[in-house]
Amino acid sequence: MNQLFIIKIGGNIVDDESALAHFLQSFATIEGAKILVHGGGKLATRMAEAMGIQQQMIEGRRITDAETLKIVTMVYAGYINKNITAILQQHGCNAIGISGADANAILAHKRNSSITDYGFVGDIDQVNISFFQQLISNQLTPVIAPITHDGKGQLLNTNADTIAQELATALSHFFTTTLVYTFEKSGVLLDTNDEASVIPLIAPDYYKELKAKNLIFAGMIPKLDNAFTALDKGVSKVIIGKADQLIHLLNGHSGTTITHA
Amino acid sequence: MNQLFIIKIGGNIVDDESALAHFLQSFATIEGAKILVHGGGKLATRMAEAMGIQQQMIEGRRITDAETLKIVTMVYAGYINKNITAILQQHGCNAIGISGADANAILAHKRNSSITDYGFVGDIDQVNISFFQQLISNQLTPVIAPITHDGKGQLLNTNADTIAQELATALSHFFTTTLVYTFEKSGVLLDTNDEASVIPLIAPDYYKELKAKNLIFAGMIPKLDNAFTALDKGVSKVIIGKADQLIHLLNGHSGTTITHA
Repeated sequence: MNQLFIIKIGGNIVDDESALAHFLQSFATIEGAKILVHGGGKLATRMAEAMGIQQQMIEGRRITDAETLKIVTMVYAGYINKNITAILQQHGCNAIGISGADANAILAHKRNSSITDYGFVGDIDQVNISFFQQLISNQLTPVIAPITHDGKGQLLNTNADTIAQELATALSHFFTTTLVYTFEKSGVLLDTNDEASVIPLIAPDYYKELKAKNLIFAGMIPKLDNAFTALDKGVSKVIIGKADQLIHLLNGHSGTTITHA
Repeated sequence: MNQLFIIKIGGNIVDDESALAHFLQSFATIEGAKILVHGGGKLATRMAEAMGIQQQMIEGRRITDAETLKIVTMVYAGYINKNITAILQQHGCNAIGISGADANAILAHKRNSSITDYGFVGDIDQVNISFFQQLISNQLTPVIAPITHDGKGQLLNTNADTIAQELATALSHFFTTTLVYTFEKSGVLLDTNDEASVIPLIAPDYYKELKAKNLIFAGMIPKLDNAFTALDKGVSKVIIGKADQLIHLLNGHSGTTITHA
């Protein structure tokens, strides 16, 4: 099977013009099939503030009401997605920016919770595998904004980490798939204040041990659980590390690699 | 050759939620190959006002400065483009929303004028014909936002009428292409205050005669010149008419048809 890299960049990188430019330059040099999934960054929040739209928060989570959905659609699927695409084109990477509505790429449903109304948040039902295969076989590089749709005309806001994981899982039946989460940290750290304390390799038994000893930073647990889910469902490898070391991450010379055994 | 319809909807329709919904429902029923090009509408101006961004105007034209480009990219390529795509998907039309940067679909350069600095306005250099052929042969319906790129990482604002004409021209070598401009009027009118005064057919000689007699409303002349340019370059037929009569327009039962002879 051919190799496929699915790489997610977080909001902090998206917000930082020079960090983003550096990242995209490296990303464009990756040979073969690749997909970029980007987060949203703080621009949507700043836009909402500038327009006087009140942000509803419940337990630290932003609620996606109708006005917020409008803004995140503009910012994520418009401004960020098209700028990333234009910059990748500049570097000779034949990028195509898409949201989940385009070609029915990612079908979702509005999250159903009897406790909290999250608003227009989408949980993924299906990835349009044949569409992504079509793009990849035409040497195109999908750049995915974290906006999905429900097939009934409604756009939805979906977590970019989850999109990356669902894509990796769906495409792992056709490609040897590596899922890469990049952010501002050097990887999974034993000591969150020490960038040199990166754990190079985590397999399931070691993860259990680290969790039992409370050595994993709470904020990292959902990402790692997500990573092991992806591995269980067919993804070959998950790498977590620093966006500005992308090529080293892919070579296994930086960051944390999560593997099955 | 197969038939291809390239249909442009203007800003007034895009701004009117129920008129847009009605138009998209009709558009989705068109059999075979079709492309939708949409204008911008007033939402970008309203957004800029809400954010306190001053709109620079020169001779009634909005200048696309960096802040305005950011907003039109958000609104045209984000909000409007993705909503139209989601609604077409709802109606069973396999739409894919794209801007000129996506897959290098429409390459342009920043307009060069020694008299007026239009800002980030793009004049089209090249349409990526093979990409559009690829989409159409995969039964996808491109939905195009009036944003292009220069191949050097810069997004540009490009007139939607011109995009529709350039696409129709480029694709007319491979399809029997009909270009349709839809807006809120019933067609080219002999009397701009009388919707019943639609001219059903305009050929070059009649156009010369109408212009000589000053019978063409000034605002319509660029659209008609554009239409004859398209015909000269290989487009089979141009139709101008009311968005809410789309199917009648395509059947020749409404609007103004512009033909070569």
